[in-house]
Amino acid sequence: MIRADLLVTDVREVATLARGAVPRTGAAMGELSLVHDAAIAVAGGRIAWIGPARHRGRAVRLAPGAATVSADAGVVVPGFVDAHTHVLFAGDRAFELPLKVAGASYPEIVRRGGGLLATVRATRAAPDRRLLREAGARLRRMASGGSTAVEVKSGYALDLPGELRLLRLVPRLARSVGVSLVPTFLGAHAVPEEYRGRADAYVDRLVGHVLPSVAREGLARFCDVFCEPGFFTVRQSERLLRAALGLGLGIKIHAEEFVLSGGARLAARLRATSADHLVCATADDRRRLAAAGVTAVLLPVTALAASPRRRSPAREMVDAGVPVALGSDCSPNTWVESMALVLALAVHAGRLSPAEALSAATVNAAHASGLAGRGRLIPGAPADFSVFSFGSVDQLGYRFDAVPVAVYRQGKRVSPS
Amino acid sequence: MIRADLLVTDVREVATLARGAVPRTGAAMGELSLVHDAAIAVAGGRIAWIGPARHRGRAVRLAPGAATVSADAGVVVPGFVDAHTHVLFAGDRAFELPLKVAGASYPEIVRRGGGLLATVRATRAAPDRRLLREAGARLRRMASGGSTAVEVKSGYALDLPGELRLLRLVPRLARSVGVSLVPTFLGAHAVPEEYRGRADAYVDRLVGHVLPSVAREGLARFCDVFCEPGFFTVRQSERLLRAALGLGLGIKIHAEEFVLSGGARLAARLRATSADHLVCATADDRRRLAAAGVTAVLLPVTALAASPRRRSPAREMVDAGVPVALGSDCSPNTWVESMALVLALAVHAGRLSPAEALSAATVNAAHASGLAGRGRLIPGAPADFSVFSFGSVDQLGYRFDAVPVAVYRQGKRVSPS
Repeated sequence: MIRADLLVTDVREVATLARGAVPRTGAAMGELSLVHDAAIAVAGGRIAWIGPARHRGRAVRLAPGAATVSADAGVVVPGFVDAHTHVLFAGDRAFELPLKVAGASYPEIVRRGGGLLATVRATRAAPDRRLLREAGARLRRMASGGSTAVEVKSGYALDLPGELRLLRLVPRLARSVGVSLVPTFLGAHAVPEEYRGRADAYVDRLVGHVLPSVAREGLARFCDVFCEPGFFTVRQSERLLRAALGLGLGIKIHAEEFVLSGGARLAARLRATSADHLVCATADDRRRLAAAGVTAVLLPVTALAASPRRRSPAREMVDAGVPVALGSDCSPNTWVESMALVLALAVHAGRLSPAEALSAATVNAAHASGLAGRGRLIPGAPADFSVFSFGSVDQLGYRFDAVPVAVYRQGKRVSPS
Repeated sequence: MIRADLLVTDVREVATLARGAVPRTGAAMGELSLVHDAAIAVAGGRIAWIGPARHRGRAVRLAPGAATVSADAGVVVPGFVDAHTHVLFAGDRAFELPLKVAGASYPEIVRRGGGLLATVRATRAAPDRRLLREAGARLRRMASGGSTAVEVKSGYALDLPGELRLLRLVPRLARSVGVSLVPTFLGAHAVPEEYRGRADAYVDRLVGHVLPSVAREGLARFCDVFCEPGFFTVRQSERLLRAALGLGLGIKIHAEEFVLSGGARLAARLRATSADHLVCATADDRRRLAAAGVTAVLLPVTALAASPRRRSPAREMVDAGVPVALGSDCSPNTWVESMALVLALAVHAGRLSPAEALSAATVNAAHASGLAGRGRLIPGAPADFSVFSFGSVDQLGYRFDAVPVAVYRQGKRVSPS
C-alpha cells in the first residue's frame, strides 16, 4: 500500500506519456497514454501512483498530514520542459522594433546600438543582483505558465569571467525560483567585440581556457555553438564541440536558422544531443538527424518573428522520424515565456497535432535537456505537473494562451505561489 | 481642484493617446502622447486628471475614503478594445487539428463532423446557462489580459430565435464579467443547413425577418456579413448591409480572408465602419478603404493559423493611410483571448511598430467598435486602463505574453478580481 503525502483528485484526464521509448519519434509522438477520471498520488516529491480514481482506495493510503487537492474535473499534464532559452540577460531590445519595421538591416540596427552585442554590453555591465532579479522574474512567469524545467544558456558575456559568472548564477536562480534549470555553455554565441575579425582566435580562447574552466567547475551540462555565417563556421563549431565532448559535456548546436550552412550535418556526424532552429534544414538533413538520433529542438516563435515567410519545420521533422522537442528561445530578440504559446505555434504554424506538440514539450524536451525521467508521469519520476481547468488534453496547442491553474514541481506547488 | 476617488501613483510611463484625430492613420498611429513619472486621478469612474506626479498636489485632492494604488514604477495603458470576436459559442473544435495536420480538406473536416456548422449545432443545443458559463470564462480571461471592451458577434445560431437569444445574452455577460461588450449581428456568418444551396432565400429571411427583429429590440450595434466564396456573395452582402443601414445599424464586413472577392470594395462603397481580415486585399483595396475612412480590423492570429504563408497586412494598411484596428477573432477556430499576444503578432508578423500596434488595439479598436471616447486616457473618458509591471510602453508588442498586474474598468478593478 502506497502512503501518499499529496493526492490530486477529480482529474478528468491525465497525460502520463508513460509508455514507449524516449525520445519519441514518428507515430509514438502522438501517444499520450491518457488515464481518464484519474487520481494522482505523490510521495516524497515523486509520483507514487496514477490510475483511475475508482482504484485509488485499494492502492493508496494518505500519510498523516497529507494534502488532497482537487483538479476540479480539469486535466493534468507533465510540467513543460523548455529546451532552449537565453533567459540570462539584462535589459531589453524593444527599441529595435520600430527600426525593423522601417526596413533597417541587421548591420544598420547594430550601428544604431542594437543587436546581440548590445545585450552583451548590458549583461556584462549588470551586477549579479540585477541579473538574478530580471532573469528570476522571467523564470517565475515561465513557471506560472507551466514550465517546471528550463534549459538556460550563457552567451551574453563572451569572456572568461563573465561566462563563468553567468553559469554560476544558474543554480542560484533554480533555488530562488523553484524550477529545475539545465545550464548550457554558449560562449560561442557570437564573436565578441574584442575579437572582431578574429573568430579563430576566439575559438582558440574558448577551447584553450574558457571551456576547460567551465568543465572543471562543473558549471554546464552542455556546450552549444551558433553555427551560422557571420558567427561560427562548421569547422570552428566542430573544433569547439569535439573539445566539449572530450571534457565530458553534452553538445548542442544552433543550426540552419537563417541559411543552410551545414550545422545539422555536423550535429548528425557528432551525434549531438540536439540541433536547434533548423528552419532551413533539408530533407537530407532530416534523414541524417533521424539516423543519428539527434533531437530537433524547434523554436516556432522565433521562426515566426524572424521572417514573414518562415515556419518551424515541425511536421517535416516528425514525418522524417526525427525526435522533435520544443523551446521558447526566450531572449531579448524573442521575448516569450509561455510554453503553451510555443505549443500553439508548433500546432498552428508548425503543423503538429496537439498530442505531438505535448510530447515535444515534455518527454522529448526533457531528453534534449539531459533530464532523463522527466516529462512523463510514471511512478518514481519527479512529481512535476500542471493542472489546467479544461477537460481534455487536446486543448493544449489548440488554445493560444492556455494558463495552468496550478503548477507543481517535485510535489510542491510553485504556482500560484 | 479635482476630488479624486482613486489615485494611481508611481506610474513610470502612461500612454494617454490624448492628442490627434480619431481614428488614427499614418504617422499618427505611432504617437502615444506619453506622460512620464505620472499620476492618474479617477472620479466617478472617469479619468479626472493625468499629469506629471509633481503637479498632482496642485491639481488633485483626494475625496474622503479615496483609494490610492501604486503602479510600482510600471506603465499604464488604456484598456484594450478587442474589435472582433466570436466568443459566444459552446464547445470546442480541437478535434479538427489532427485532421488538418494529416492534410484533410475543409469539406472532409465537415464530413467528419467539424467546421463552422458543427459549432452552430453545439451552440443551438446549449442552454443559456452553459453559454453564459463558457463565454463568461473566456471574457473573464480576456479581461485579466487587459481587454476592457470586447466586440461580440452572434452567428452560431443562424435562425431567428437563436440569433436573438445570443444577442440577448450579451448584456447579461457584460454585467456578470464587468467588461463593456458591443453586440454585432452576424446572422450571415454562414448559410445554415436548413437553407443549404439557397443562400438567396436565407438572405431574404435575414432581411425580411431577422434583421428587423434585431433592430426593433435594439439588440445589436452593428450588422456584419461573411463575404467569401461558399458563404455570401458581394451582391448578397450588399443587400443585407444596405438593409442594416436602413434600420440604423452600423455595418462591418468579413472581407478578403481566403481569396479576393470584392468585400473590401463593397466596404469602401458603403462606407462601412470596418472591413475585417483583409489578408488578400490589394493595393487598390487599400486606397479605397483609406479614401472612404473604413477601419481595417486585422486579426493576425487567425491569419497565422489559417495558412503557413499568410500574414495580416498591417504594415501595408498603415502605409496606405488606412486606420488599422486589432481583434483577437476568438472563436472555436482560433481560440485566443490575450490582446497582448495579438499586439505581438501584429508587430512580429504584421510589421507594426509597438506604438502603432497599441493605437490599433485601443483608440482605433474603440472607433471600429462604435465606442467613441474609449481607448484613450483623457479627462472625462471612462477610466478603463491596465497596469503592467515593466517600465516602458514599448514592451507591449515586443513581449509575446505580457500580462497586466491590474486591470481597471470605469475606475473599478476587474482583474485580479
